[in-house]
Amino acid sequence: MPHTLTNDSYGKWDVRLTKVTRLPDRHELKELSVNVLLRGEFADTYRTGDNSKIIATDSMKNTVYVLAKKHPIASIESFAAALAEHFVTKYPQVEAAQIVVWEKAWSRFSRDDRPHPHAFVAGSAERRRCMITNIKGQVGYMAGTDDLLVLKTTDSAFAGFVRDEFTTLADTDDRIFATSVRALWDYGYPSGDEDWNAHYAAARQALLDTFAGHMSLSVQQTLYAMGEAVLARCPLVQSVEITMPNQHRIPFNFAPFGLTNDNDIFVPIDEPCGMIRGTIKRE
Amino acid sequence: MPHTLTNDSYGKWDVRLTKVTRLPDRHELKELSVNVLLRGEFADTYRTGDNSKIIATDSMKNTVYVLAKKHPIASIESFAAALAEHFVTKYPQVEAAQIVVWEKAWSRFSRDDRPHPHAFVAGSAERRRCMITNIKGQVGYMAGTDDLLVLKTTDSAFAGFVRDEFTTLADTDDRIFATSVRALWDYGYPSGDEDWNAHYAAARQALLDTFAGHMSLSVQQTLYAMGEAVLARCPLVQSVEITMPNQHRIPFNFAPFGLTNDNDIFVPIDEPCGMIRGTIKRE
Amino acid sequence: MPHTLTNDSYGKWDVRLTKVTRLPDRHELKELSVNVLLRGEFADTYRTGDNSKIIATDSMKNTVYVLAKKHPIASIESFAAALAEHFVTKYPQVEAAQIVVWEKAWSRFSRDDRPHPHAFVAGSAERRRCMITNIKGQVGYMAGTDDLLVLKTTDSAFAGFVRDEFTTLADTDDRIFATSVRALWDYGYPSGDEDWNAHYAAARQALLDTFAGHMSLSVQQTLYAMGEAVLARCPLVQSVEITMPNQHRIPFNFAPFGLTNDNDIFVPIDEPCGMIRGTIKRE
Amino acid sequence: MPHTLTNDSYGKWDVRLTKVTRLPDRHELKELSVNVLLRGEFADTYRTGDNSKIIATDSMKNTVYVLAKKHPIASIESFAAALAEHFVTKYPQVEAAQIVVWEKAWSRFSRDDRPHPHAFVAGSAERRRCMITNIKGQVGYMAGTDDLLVLKTTDSAFAGFVRDEFTTLADTDDRIFATSVRALWDYGYPSGDEDWNAHYAAARQALLDTFAGHMSLSVQQTLYAMGEAVLARCPLVQSVEITMPNQHRIPFNFAPFGLTNDNDIFVPIDEPCGMIRGTIKRE
Repeated sequence: MPHTLTNDSYGKWDVRLTKVTRLPDRHELKELSVNVLLRGEFADTYRTGDNSKIIATDSMKNTVYVLAKKHPIASIESFAAALAEHFVTKYPQVEAAQIVVWEKAWSRFSRDDRPHPHAFVAGSAERRRCMITNIKGQVGYMAGTDDLLVLKTTDSAFAGFVRDEFTTLADTDDRIFATSVRALWDYGYPSGDEDWNAHYAAARQALLDTFAGHMSLSVQQTLYAMGEAVLARCPLVQSVEITMPNQHRIPFNFAPFGLTNDNDIFVPIDEPCGMIRGTIKRE
Repeated sequence: MPHTLTNDSYGKWDVRLTKVTRLPDRHELKELSVNVLLRGEFADTYRTGDNSKIIATDSMKNTVYVLAKKHPIASIESFAAALAEHFVTKYPQVEAAQIVVWEKAWSRFSRDDRPHPHAFVAGSAERRRCMITNIKGQVGYMAGTDDLLVLKTTDSAFAGFVRDEFTTLADTDDRIFATSVRALWDYGYPSGDEDWNAHYAAARQALLDTFAGHMSLSVQQTLYAMGEAVLARCPLVQSVEITMPNQHRIPFNFAPFGLTNDNDIFVPIDEPCGMIRGTIKRE
Repeated sequence: MPHTLTNDSYGKWDVRLTKVTRLPDRHELKELSVNVLLRGEFADTYRTGDNSKIIATDSMKNTVYVLAKKHPIASIESFAAALAEHFVTKYPQVEAAQIVVWEKAWSRFSRDDRPHPHAFVAGSAERRRCMITNIKGQVGYMAGTDDLLVLKTTDSAFAGFVRDEFTTLADTDDRIFATSVRALWDYGYPSGDEDWNAHYAAARQALLDTFAGHMSLSVQQTLYAMGEAVLARCPLVQSVEITMPNQHRIPFNFAPFGLTNDNDIFVPIDEPCGMIRGTIKRE
Repeated sequence: MPHTLTNDSYGKWDVRLTKVTRLPDRHELKELSVNVLLRGEFADTYRTGDNSKIIATDSMKNTVYVLAKKHPIASIESFAAALAEHFVTKYPQVEAAQIVVWEKAWSRFSRDDRPHPHAFVAGSAERRRCMITNIKGQVGYMAGTDDLLVLKTTDSAFAGFVRDEFTTLADTDDRIFATSVRALWDYGYPSGDEDWNAHYAAARQALLDTFAGHMSLSVQQTLYAMGEAVLARCPLVQSVEITMPNQHRIPFNFAPFGLTNDNDIFVPIDEPCGMIRGTIKRE
């Protein structure tokens, strides 16, 4: 009884590395986590255990470190593209390589506005991410941010929604809006060199500016506005996929204590959360 | 500049509930976590903030609790199907509802082989899961298990893989094989009543039996064999998607201490891990 | 300006190891996590950076693996005692060594009541723990359990507490009682050989039996009864320290939906939680 | 068989709150997590289930919110002191109240150096913490920081340690030094009003400046220097307890690949970690 095998891909997850570049006046620090995923002629190992075409995931790990040494890693996109190209070029059995890289946020320590040459303080949980897919030499670039946690204390309403026997939430014209933005935007298949750091910074700034400045009638509306802003400011971006959980701050019920809630005291809860998503594409 | 909006879906994530059914001789306990995701005519709230077709995620949460009270929850599949049907039937603007339910593993406390009527001890991290998708009344059933952590101390080899300048891993004919199985199988669109608990138990047992009994030449091969076993034993299953991280146990290097590693002492590491996946479908 | 230095101790945290013992008919599996903490004549490295008396924490890690190979690890207590003795005996500058070992719960896979010779399934989050302290050859033994998650659906009341302007909780004669027991009991300084596995099993069983069987008027009362039971059943135990968070299951408020809560549907919440603790000592 | 009961304390853990203060030109945001622990005449509930002196932990939770509304929360220390005083003053059966408050790091969003009036971006994992203990009106103040993650790429050596048959680590005069500082300093029992925010900022800055500027011969030495700096700069601080895990960055072994590690590429590992601690007290 032969069965069909699909999605037969494998790789190495969470290869972590620290790279220090020792410049004359300062050190540069990068901390990355890398996922490697390969697709290709691997069905034999699934069906018979014939590993002759299998690149061991341990070798993938070694490859990440060796290429990290040789590559300047000016951006995670350029490094990921080099990794993807390596696997597709070197191994004929590899049809596609997908590389995801996350960069940990470190800030240079500074004192009295003087940046320190070699001391760093960890930044927030936000992680810059890229996903590069090389399919037989055609290279797609995607980038984004994970866990960008933002909150605004006003300019957020939610009213006029369906009201029926399951509804207890009151309309509100002023609530806290807190979310952890996860965004992934698609640069398509750019042919030339690109300043990936500049593209990333522009898209991220578009997300932040819009979140902060938008008069929100729903999380959905703000999400869409954030996506539009990315497209408006970043000509290379073809589409952007955004996920924004609504991380609720519930007004504490002061009625039993003879007090009113003046939109001042809230209970932050982790779960349940609203989960809002959408993809905004250029026409 | 109008943009295209896709994937405009939203819902409530991680609605947690405990249901106690008080039978004459014993209590039954269910602890679930429920995700609700709706797709439909929601573009207006994204584009203009018009919420008139929006079911508040808070109302979805209420709905989960109200239906949990009314429904016997004999299986998570039947409960999830009821939830999905509710949303598709009640709200014309909802085109599709996807409900995911996870069930926490609780074991009835027993003493001297006598089961206790109302005390329970938490089981492992493994969580039974189902995903029910109702698209305008057509109901697809999927089920699976997350975080089923298993380990075998022998009957696992890995040899004959590509050996080049990036390879340092030695061939081995006997290694520890530890993984956290994540499997999701597809029952298609069954029309009649099904014993979901029996189907689940059979598929899970097929995974476990095969993992334990297989002479593994690669993680990939064992994964494929596990998938085949599910298809062989569960006629209703159309396909099964399995993800198995290779959670390495590295032999400790005793050479500096004048000792040998006799396949007895290992260092378990969380990352990096090999990541192996595949989908096995009935022809 | 000389300052006083106290608590100048250091060590290695979370040394993880897997030990496989290959018996003729079956394999035995132990997975441990070990903390080593040393106290002694280490002030110089703190004050001047003179490391001449410092045992590198990397060497502690090596020591754990070397001793794990040589020691049968019949119990985590015996292994931890051997580790503690090693550090105190070998290094004159070490005045005290404290070793904590956690054991991961693995269950042998079984099928049709036949135990499998070498396949295992992960147990619950509960971890057996011991803490052995060797102070210049005097050896104190403590043992316990972490994260033993239990729940009972009845036989738990909470009433008659202080009622004032800050009180909104109603008296109840029937609530869910869920907690994650953390217990550490003290065997004192036993001189002879002990069956640590039997002592552990007896104390753990006393905790479970009492939790399940106790008619609870408060978490505090059940905690005390559990401690008393350990002392009653385990003559070697001198005292037991127990911490039990009250992991609330809140009855869902069905009033807005024209339904009643019949003690059947609850919302489990992680936080906030009541935190109850106490130490029960033999007179 | 009467047993001795000690450590019979209880409370509410992880009461989370958000406070928004709406000033004319901007909003202020505080997000706190509060632990309440009470000690007093509570033995009856442990021994007999008599709850007549028990303040329900649910009422403690209510109290935190009510006092958060009334209190300006200029500092977490002042708010925690008010909470502690409340419990000790209001309830004669309470002999001591210990309040721990953590503050989540939020940064005001700013654009082109203009701070936004009501949008915030999450800061790092670092959490300011205080612990206030009120024993029958005598109030002890402690404060500190948790999870302050810092890294320096040079000015860290480790050499001259014990070298024996368990040692494989080489001496190094240049390594990465990464740690997550946990510090708790003791202000004693100050009688007057204090600027807690200024004290906190000074102590934290002393920790950071010393970490960055110290030529480290061991983690221990840097820890001690950091403690000395806190005492030197903060006259109110009587002692400071510091815990610093050595979060290793292991040089990747390039030898199999014909390359050298030039102190440029490292493998960050979470565990095992060295664990270094000490308390530095004013004479």
